[in-house]
Amino acid sequence: MTDAAADVVTRLRAALGDRVDTTEAARHEARADKSGHAASGLPLAVVRAQSVDDVQQTLRIASDTRTPVVTRGAGTGLAGGANAGAGEIALSVRDMDRILEVRPDDLLAVVEPGILNGDLNAALAEHGLWWAPDPASRAISTVGGNIATGAGGLLCAKYGVVRDAVLGVDLVLADGRLLQLGHRTVKGVTGLDLTSLVIGSEGTLGVVVGATLKLRRLVPGTVCTVAATFPDVRAAATASAAVTASGVQPSIMELMDAASLRAVHDLLGLDEPTPGAAQLTIQTDGPAADAEADAIAATLRAAGGTVAVTHDRAEGERLLAIRRSMHPAMERLGTSLIEDVSVPRSALPAMFDEIARVEREHGLTIPTVAHAGDGNLHPNFLFSSAGSETGHEDDGTIDVPPAIWAAADDLFRAALRLGGTLTGEHGIGVLKRRWLADELGDDQWELQRQIARVFDPHGILNPGKVFAV
Amino acid sequence: MTDAAADVVTRLRAALGDRVDTTEAARHEARADKSGHAASGLPLAVVRAQSVDDVQQTLRIASDTRTPVVTRGAGTGLAGGANAGAGEIALSVRDMDRILEVRPDDLLAVVEPGILNGDLNAALAEHGLWWAPDPASRAISTVGGNIATGAGGLLCAKYGVVRDAVLGVDLVLADGRLLQLGHRTVKGVTGLDLTSLVIGSEGTLGVVVGATLKLRRLVPGTVCTVAATFPDVRAAATASAAVTASGVQPSIMELMDAASLRAVHDLLGLDEPTPGAAQLTIQTDGPAADAEADAIAATLRAAGGTVAVTHDRAEGERLLAIRRSMHPAMERLGTSLIEDVSVPRSALPAMFDEIARVEREHGLTIPTVAHAGDGNLHPNFLFSSAGSETGHEDDGTIDVPPAIWAAADDLFRAALRLGGTLTGEHGIGVLKRRWLADELGDDQWELQRQIARVFDPHGILNPGKVFAV
Repeated sequence: MTDAAADVVTRLRAALGDRVDTTEAARHEARADKSGHAASGLPLAVVRAQSVDDVQQTLRIASDTRTPVVTRGAGTGLAGGANAGAGEIALSVRDMDRILEVRPDDLLAVVEPGILNGDLNAALAEHGLWWAPDPASRAISTVGGNIATGAGGLLCAKYGVVRDAVLGVDLVLADGRLLQLGHRTVKGVTGLDLTSLVIGSEGTLGVVVGATLKLRRLVPGTVCTVAATFPDVRAAATASAAVTASGVQPSIMELMDAASLRAVHDLLGLDEPTPGAAQLTIQTDGPAADAEADAIAATLRAAGGTVAVTHDRAEGERLLAIRRSMHPAMERLGTSLIEDVSVPRSALPAMFDEIARVEREHGLTIPTVAHAGDGNLHPNFLFSSAGSETGHEDDGTIDVPPAIWAAADDLFRAALRLGGTLTGEHGIGVLKRRWLADELGDDQWELQRQIARVFDPHGILNPGKVFAV
Repeated sequence: MTDAAADVVTRLRAALGDRVDTTEAARHEARADKSGHAASGLPLAVVRAQSVDDVQQTLRIASDTRTPVVTRGAGTGLAGGANAGAGEIALSVRDMDRILEVRPDDLLAVVEPGILNGDLNAALAEHGLWWAPDPASRAISTVGGNIATGAGGLLCAKYGVVRDAVLGVDLVLADGRLLQLGHRTVKGVTGLDLTSLVIGSEGTLGVVVGATLKLRRLVPGTVCTVAATFPDVRAAATASAAVTASGVQPSIMELMDAASLRAVHDLLGLDEPTPGAAQLTIQTDGPAADAEADAIAATLRAAGGTVAVTHDRAEGERLLAIRRSMHPAMERLGTSLIEDVSVPRSALPAMFDEIARVEREHGLTIPTVAHAGDGNLHPNFLFSSAGSETGHEDDGTIDVPPAIWAAADDLFRAALRLGGTLTGEHGIGVLKRRWLADELGDDQWELQRQIARVFDPHGILNPGKVFAV
């Protein structure tokens, strides 16, 4: 450690005592997220903030010393956006996990950023309320991370994205000043909407230390589940687009291709699925759930699907568990790059054609699941089989080979051609920064960099992520 | 006109021909909006852009010559945000009113900014679709103005605000460059959300020349209307808060106080209402509309209301027409400053107490209606009776007297104390700019100014509005 770096740690420790963790284990953990990708070297320290003041003190020291700060929640990101490396401070807000206020009469809650999404909704359920943003990782991911990445999930077509569900955020700037952005009202147009600007900004504008969340009442009525199999993935994608076009709005509509389905069936010890078959798992909820499920079943049958409908919640959860087992099933197959493109819903069949083309032309297997209700696909670029060491570093982190990036590049450009976007819900982080300007265009990319500099003039907030070349 | 000003007009005319209108009538009209407030002096010219290229050419000339540009739609704003004065170019996008694309399968439309909200929804209805943002002015206001001000309307509690219904905007910057912000997908988190930043930015960041709108299916089922009268406005406000707290979500919930009700009954030739009585008019829609209307009626009766429920659409529209006649009724009473504070819904009764206090302490009558479903109030500060010339300038524009501003100041501060905001849906414009820093705080105010400068380094876009001191 250089003298300057040692000085930073000394100052942090003087201000924050044992909330400054310099153990090798902590610093090692802060290098990576769930993508498996890791930063180079170890961060100087992990600061475990327990209060807004802790965050402000950390930022003041970082600003004084021009030390980069990487904010972390639970480390469940999939784009490397919260990975902290050599010379950086990893600032964890995971311990700031209190619910400060729940107002059923105003349908809002004020929370600290470190609370887990699942824990928040468990607490809100006691009030008959929930917060709709529902990433698949809800049991292990934080509300702050959800906000920082603009995470999505399974329910977005019916219940909106994170931006639709946040009224305000408290933000500590790079120099340690605290701003309260947004409002507590349903409507509010005073000045520029900096709350929305912060959502999805991946730690580049400031540190979110509190959030005012827009809540919903728990949905009354039943939940119906429809499962349908199709001879191939294109037929399943066409059927999902037909459901959207029919005007019936499911709460969940998930698509699994043949390779995904096979891997999960294998993991769960289920019968082997029909070769080539793809599956749609669809849920409806609310007062019209039964009628909507029947209408959807009819659309799926007309599209050539073999369809089963259940009105039993437990049976529905069992069917959905097949989709939820995708990540462990992929991990069993080996190492993969999990991608996250999003396309207009009508373009889903064409996007699956493109994935098949990329598989052929690059000689790869790319098991893919999609949130078909909103057009968000997660192609898994497998690049080493289980047991092989290829792609794995000694410390368990992964290094994506150039050939895989070439295939991903091909896929990204196909999504953009179809009117889509690079990332639906995972963010740019480090893993997709080299494609950012391709989507935004150079003028917008430069404008976004300049806006980030207004918040962070010395560029100490998550440098090397999102906007870095 | 100075030589420099004449040169600007000459250059505009060379580039844009007869789309440059320098008639006194046109320049006069561009000075004011529906607030009645007018800018000082006449703008240099009104440019009636018919294409993106027209807008770009105008901005290039304006940038070259450092001439301020005020973008206008239909001139229905209520905060003076689109008023153009001496030395400025009024840039009208009202003629850019085409629907470029409707995609029922992707639930989106691409439109030009000048289309009227009502015309858009009439065209979308043919596809079984609608765009939810529904300002009371929908018949005369544009989609671009809706986006520029972050306009709201009657349906926001159930169907969201404008930000929830715009996927992307095409923006011409001060220097004439065209940026495409946002995406066509349900989810998208590539880079910073500049689309949301532009929504409600009131012409300070660029000129919106196109928008990709997120559509909904027309709501199936019936519409039920509940009308309830209460002995006083506080009781009506308490009842509306009770409806929100009960968990049933009306599509519309409007409140009229006694003075508003009296004025409208008088205008429409209806029986005089009970002195002091206030009214709630509530609609439910969708598959559960009937059951929801019954549940709401029960809540209102328990809160002391005299309640009538109708399942007849025409009768429901007749009841709602009373609320929709508020503006003409106020105009008949004389000249008023129409305000727009918003508070958390539980604070509605307390806000009506504050309005009564301001009336008492300032010796004023302030007829008030509220979008009670979302907590947005429109107090009308009457300051001259019909027939009097006080407050009216010779040209029909109005000048709000200092005593009225003092009362409004008192009211704004009360709203902020209750956790509210200065403006729910009308914007800051010129009329509320002196309170902007009070709500944002000096640090955030300065940060917002700096962000605007990134888009508009020379400060030619709507100077003197929003951020001006």
